[in-house]
Amino acid sequence: MIIDCHGHYTTVPKSFRDFRAKQVEFANDPANAPTVADAHVSDDQIREGIENGQLKLQQERGSDLTLFSPIAGLMSHHLGNERTSLEWASISNDLVYRVTEMYPDNFAPVCMLPQSPGAAPANSVPELRRCVEELGFVGVNVNPDTTGGYWTGKPFTDREWYPLFEAMCDLDVPGMVHVAASCNPNFHGTGAHYLNADTSVFMQILQSNLFADFPTLRLVIPHGGGAVPYHWGRYRGMSLEMMDRPLEGLLDNIFFDTCVYHHPGVELLTKVIPTDNVLFGSEMIGAVRGRDPNTGEYFDDTKIYVDACAALSDDDRLKIYELNARRVYPRLDKRLRARGL
Amino acid sequence: MIIDCHGHYTTVPKSFRDFRAKQVEFANDPANAPTVADAHVSDDQIREGIENGQLKLQQERGSDLTLFSPIAGLMSHHLGNERTSLEWASISNDLVYRVTEMYPDNFAPVCMLPQSPGAAPANSVPELRRCVEELGFVGVNVNPDTTGGYWTGKPFTDREWYPLFEAMCDLDVPGMVHVAASCNPNFHGTGAHYLNADTSVFMQILQSNLFADFPTLRLVIPHGGGAVPYHWGRYRGMSLEMMDRPLEGLLDNIFFDTCVYHHPGVELLTKVIPTDNVLFGSEMIGAVRGRDPNTGEYFDDTKIYVDACAALSDDDRLKIYELNARRVYPRLDKRLRARGL
Repeated sequence: MIIDCHGHYTTVPKSFRDFRAKQVEFANDPANAPTVADAHVSDDQIREGIENGQLKLQQERGSDLTLFSPIAGLMSHHLGNERTSLEWASISNDLVYRVTEMYPDNFAPVCMLPQSPGAAPANSVPELRRCVEELGFVGVNVNPDTTGGYWTGKPFTDREWYPLFEAMCDLDVPGMVHVAASCNPNFHGTGAHYLNADTSVFMQILQSNLFADFPTLRLVIPHGGGAVPYHWGRYRGMSLEMMDRPLEGLLDNIFFDTCVYHHPGVELLTKVIPTDNVLFGSEMIGAVRGRDPNTGEYFDDTKIYVDACAALSDDDRLKIYELNARRVYPRLDKRLRARGL
Repeated sequence: MIIDCHGHYTTVPKSFRDFRAKQVEFANDPANAPTVADAHVSDDQIREGIENGQLKLQQERGSDLTLFSPIAGLMSHHLGNERTSLEWASISNDLVYRVTEMYPDNFAPVCMLPQSPGAAPANSVPELRRCVEELGFVGVNVNPDTTGGYWTGKPFTDREWYPLFEAMCDLDVPGMVHVAASCNPNFHGTGAHYLNADTSVFMQILQSNLFADFPTLRLVIPHGGGAVPYHWGRYRGMSLEMMDRPLEGLLDNIFFDTCVYHHPGVELLTKVIPTDNVLFGSEMIGAVRGRDPNTGEYFDDTKIYVDACAALSDDDRLKIYELNARRVYPRLDKRLRARGL
């Protein structure tokens, strides 16, 4: 089977986005804020978005199951406050849960966290536990920059993150390191902030001993790892120079998805990064929704690029498409096995 | 001949770095600040650094001439104030000039600017004109983030930059878009901030009509373009979607160097980016100074990677090694011709 490790519920109805806008607008005026009921999405609305959107594209492109999480841009932890972040995370996660209950063969749930600038990452642990323990979520998206592109918080390797990492290890769920929207005009969201975050957090980890403290922590760096695989030699050199350890030592704990929207990029990724560390992902329907005029194919139909990597064996592809995801997300594996998959 | 478009004078004596530290320390206490004379570097000191450093490596690696500019990290425009930036730029540029006068066959000068947070880019024009018109500099490094990694200034495409771009067009000198040190603990300088800046500015330009306003402006995006060539499909898709124009339309004005420290990266770069837009660069002696234990070669000996790109013809290599640099830096071409090269 083909598992897409990177999908967001971007096909929510407009009313759901409107709720978020109002919630933020009235963040400091709870008496006039919209209520949770105003965020309600009907089953029909879910069907309309999913069946004309992600499910349709799954079928057209030949993937089977998507790890599905709330819209990354809309996590917007920099907006509102800790209370609104908690409400929004809870509403968004519950909605994703409903999708995955309605289409259990096609989607498995990944949660967002109620992060907020200045709030301790530890404060996100209860929502993580609720999602994983009560609702069966299999992974979590962790935002390394709650400031929306100003990066005035602490690095991802700071000890303030440790309670969250402890919970992730305890629950055995991996984290995708995924920022939200950028409010910094220097950084376009999907064209710069996302890739910068991937690159920056990888480098923060390279400089740290994070995995000595958390040997079982697993992190997925999305968007093909930002600039990292393209600059793998730079990082190999820096790791040897700065930390006196081979960069490859990070690969027990770090994984990259294939959200790179052309064949040469995916080819480099799969050439440079060991096959065990590459997880198929497309992030459809996301940053790039159009078709390549040269080929007529969707830019984000990344399966085409993986299939075209001549150097990959069938075993390699089996790992990238399925086995690595099952290994990195053990709760996904259990969920699939429970369904006979 | 082989022209390395990206070199910094990193082998300055310690006293020169010490001057800068003191200059910044006493930025607001000019009475006790060190004097320009304290920054003096002797000819012997220049010889010692260059002949045991960049010149030696040029000869060992088989390149001929390096576009040479002040140390990027030490530009540190976020430190001190506009007055100290001007003093430091002037001292640093004068020192680079001396190197290029002592070794005119091996180095050609590229200047830094006296940028400072909050200071208008227009204020940098006089130093640019001094370097180009009086000292024969052939290019300029422009820092798109004077805040040292906090990015609280305006995007590179904002009209506040226009007077500088007008001067660059008037003087016919290209700019390398190159940040300085990072003071943001989230961004390692050479491991994150540099690459993020390359990516971010490219995306800013993609979102803009900069080259409609400056059809002859030429910008070199260093470090292989950050994440850009690796994500070329993402940018192709975004350019079509957001701007309704092919990304390739930027390639009359944007160029990438080959500072990518492994062969698969350089192979991707030369496969994805047209040969006319790739300039040989190594940034030695810079971010990664060690040798790859697998091959015994220096990570930043990028000529090895270019030579190993089987898909490149001899004509392609001639362009990447020499002709593109002469075309993008017409004052370099003139300088070389004047020397019979």
